[in-house]
Formats: sequence, structure tokens, C-alpha cells
Amino acid sequence: MGRVTTREKVLRIRGAASDDRADTLVVEEPLEIRFGGSPLTVTMRTPGDDFDLAAGFLASEGVLAGAEDLESIRYCAGATADGSNTYNVLDVAAAPHVPPPDTSLERNFYTSSSCGLCGKASIDAVRTAVRWDVSGDALEVTPELLASLPDRLREAQRVFDRTGGLHAAGLFDTEGRLLCLREDVGRHNAVDKLVGWALRQGMLPLRNTVLMVSGRASFELVQKALMAGVPALAAVSAPSSLAVELAREHGLTLVGFLRGDSMNVYAGRNRITLETASQTPMAAPR
Amino acid sequence: MGRVTTREKVLRIRGAASDDRADTLVVEEPLEIRFGGSPLTVTMRTPGDDFDLAAGFLASEGVLAGAEDLESIRYCAGATADGSNTYNVLDVAAAPHVPPPDTSLERNFYTSSSCGLCGKASIDAVRTAVRWDVSGDALEVTPELLASLPDRLREAQRVFDRTGGLHAAGLFDTEGRLLCLREDVGRHNAVDKLVGWALRQGMLPLRNTVLMVSGRASFELVQKALMAGVPALAAVSAPSSLAVELAREHGLTLVGFLRGDSMNVYAGRNRITLETASQTPMAAPR
Repeated sequence: MGRVTTREKVLRIRGAASDDRADTLVVEEPLEIRFGGSPLTVTMRTPGDDFDLAAGFLASEGVLAGAEDLESIRYCAGATADGSNTYNVLDVAAAPHVPPPDTSLERNFYTSSSCGLCGKASIDAVRTAVRWDVSGDALEVTPELLASLPDRLREAQRVFDRTGGLHAAGLFDTEGRLLCLREDVGRHNAVDKLVGWALRQGMLPLRNTVLMVSGRASFELVQKALMAGVPALAAVSAPSSLAVELAREHGLTLVGFLRGDSMNVYAGRNRITLETASQTPMAAPR
Repeated sequence: MGRVTTREKVLRIRGAASDDRADTLVVEEPLEIRFGGSPLTVTMRTPGDDFDLAAGFLASEGVLAGAEDLESIRYCAGATADGSNTYNVLDVAAAPHVPPPDTSLERNFYTSSSCGLCGKASIDAVRTAVRWDVSGDALEVTPELLASLPDRLREAQRVFDRTGGLHAAGLFDTEGRLLCLREDVGRHNAVDKLVGWALRQGMLPLRNTVLMVSGRASFELVQKALMAGVPALAAVSAPSSLAVELAREHGLTLVGFLRGDSMNVYAGRNRITLETASQTPMAAPR
């Protein structure tokens, strides 16, 4: 695609000094996802891996569960004045057995018809949609392996160092090998791209893997992990209360504040193999 | 509300040592916004300042332009089994002269009916919706004042230090005084809360102010600034390409990588008053 970054002239100020220079920016462009020809949603994303993004979005929403549900994805060509293709609109054709998505997709997971909307109702809605049970996943990881993931993710990020503006999602196996990395200006998009890649490879559910994200762990990211059958989600920053609740309900291992050799395990600690001899209380605050 | 943070037991791992401790988490709960009794959208947010959030969301979407457009906001009470109010559903009543929003709100700003969706079309859509012209705003700020904002924002953040999980948006006057601070698990929500506060105070458009955000500057955040009539947006991290384009089109001052005494000015540099004597070229890379 070649449109992941662009360069723009900026005024750089450092204390009392200033100059003009070219700065590398991460590209953000709208992507319209159509389903069977009908507009479904528009997301602001970094161009690249768009087919993965569309497939992953539909997997996260419970529309697609595997490669067999997907017939084709194509860019819609040229209804612009000059007939060119913006590569910002694509159409997903599902296999005949797949029911079309509810057009009010955003509300699917959260809404109750009553005034009783709450976190519990949101969790219940996810339970209805999830097709895999990650609670029985036999994944076992050591703190050492988890601690190695942020560096591996960062090393593989091609664009971040040039722009400072991209979120990353990485999928790792139990040896700590990076199976797939996706970057995007939006953190949800980075995970959708990764899940879509896996779906198109026929890899769902993603048993025995760890999903690592560069930012925080929200309810929606835990939801996306569950919809992909991932048994463990690790984040560089904090999880939210509802992310922790959802992870505990479904038996997902949720690790936050993964930095250096430190981490907090918020859910699913049974998959973390500690050396029992060293489980000593610590006095120092976080 | 008292539900901004919660405490959960976590397994804390530091190298080879580990222990159990209570960790403070930022609360995330769904909020359903209804308009005239009809469900409009659901967002995952941190409880608190919900009326501001709803008003700001509707201002960002171009539905409300000022306090006179707003009749009332109320929580919908108790359709739960036990009759309690979850405080997660609210209904906005607009003044009779306000046309109801398009129910496909999310697509309003981005979609073209053709296959020609692109950044340019998104920018055009915002131009149609914006009611204020910020390009003529007389705001003038020094780099020193801008450099002081991140610390002032951080000092005023009550919850971040306990959770590490909250985004902040702060509104400053030309003296660097903090007029309003709002925090949320979602960065868009923090800005919506701030804009909604201003709308309900009858302060829109927000002339002669600087909006400071704790994260990156995306297209949507520039859009929200424009819809509130803010002439300058400053961000701790990187802007996206489309955020810069939109800011330049509308004469908004956009500052990124605002850290220490350093910053990059991506658009609207005319509002930044430099000491001309010190405008010397710099050799060091960013």
C-alpha cells in the first residue's frame, strides 16, 4: 500500500530554539466495511492489512467464526469523479450459511432493552456470542517468558519508531515466538487486524497463544481475545474493572503493567508457572 | 457517583518474587445515551460527569450547538429486576427547535454514498457540520505557556496516579489556568465530557482557549475541538496525518509531542509567539 506513513513540514520548538523540519506522521484514513454490498461500519485506520481488519472486525462481532465463513473480500473500485480506487471501501462476501449481521452492530454487545444496562449485562452479552471456551486451554507460561514479550513486540514494530503514533498487537506462541504483528493508529484495529489474519489462515480458535497489546486492556480488547479463542492477554498498561471481570468470568489469563520483569496478574493466574520457592512477600510498593 | 475506581486482588510478580495485593482499577461501565427516548449509542466509559459526556457527544456530532439547544438530561430509572437504577442509561431531551440526530450517527461524518470514501471526503463532511470558524480566533500563546500545560494537567488528575488507566482532557485559558479537567478510560470520552461541561455552561464556542489531551491527536479529536470552537489543540503524543490535514484546513493550531520544553507545531503556527532572536536552526535530531 505504501501509505502507512507520510512526511509533513512542522515547526519544531526546543526551549528557546526552533526550526522547520520534516516529520514522519502515521497515516489515518477512513475505511468503510460493507457486508454483502451493504455499508456496515466506518473506522478510522492506518491503511494496510485492510482485509485482515475487516475479517477480524467481523470475527470480533461474532459474524465470522472461521475461514470457512468467508467467501471473499475485495476493494470497491472507483466511484470517484476521476474513476480511481481510494482503497478505502471494501466489501466482504460471506459463505451462504452465514446470517447477515445485525445492522446495529455497535449495540449488539451492550444493549439491554430495559433501563438496566450494566457491566453484568455486557458480560452476559459476550457470553452469548463467544463460540470457544478458553477456560480449559492448557496454556502454561512463565513470568520470564511474559517479561520478554514487550521487547520482542517493540523490536518487530517497524513504524512506531518513525512516528510514535502506532498501537501494536502481537500474537506469541508458548516459546515466545512472534506469530503475527499488526500495527494501527487505533488499538482496537490493531487487534482486529491480527485476529483477521488468524481467521483467514484458518487458525481460529487461537489456542495456546498469548496476545500482547501495547496499550491498556479494556473490556473490548478482552472481548476480542475471547471471540478469537485466545487464552491469555497481556498489556503494557492498566486493565479496566470490566476487563478484569470479563476475563475472570471466562477463564482468560489477563496480565497488566507488563514492564521489565514486573507484571500484575488480574485473572487466570493458574496458567502462570511460578517457582514456588521464590514466592516471598514483597515490602516495596508498586 | 463514587464508582470511578475499584479495588481488586491481583498477583503481583517482580522478577522471581511474587505476592498477593489489592490493586486500584479504573471503573469501566457501559453508558447508553438516548435522545428523546430512543436509544442512540452505547459507549464504554468511566462513570462520573455522565451528563457532560452525553451533551459533549451530541455537540461533537453536531446535534447540539449550545445550552439553548438542551432541555434536560436525566437518568432512566429502574427497569432492572430489583427496580434499582444502574445510572448507566440516560435520556437527553432537546429543545423543540433541534432536529433529531440521524440514527446512523457514526457514519455521518465519514460516509460518502459512493466508493470514493477518502480522507478528503471526511474533511469535507466536518466542514459541513462545523458551526464556528476558529481560523480567525485571536488566541496567542508562547511556547513557555504550552510547555507548562502537561504538568498542570497531570497535577490536576486525581485518578490517574492510583490506576494508570485514565485519559485526561484539560481546557486552559491564555494565562494557563485550568478551566476544566475531565478524565475517562476512553480518550474520546474525556474530550466529550469537557465539551459537554462547556456547552452546559453556555460557553460554546470556546474562543481563546487551549485544549490539552494526554494521548495522541487523531482525526476525531481535532473534529471534536472544531465542533466546540476551540482554536488550539495540544497533545502529549503524535498526531495522525488526517488530524494535521483537518487542522490546517480549518485554521486550528495543532501541537504534538508536547513534553518538557519541546513540542512540534503541525498547524496554525501563527498563534505561537516565538522570540524571533532565538529562532536558530538546530542540529540535533528529534
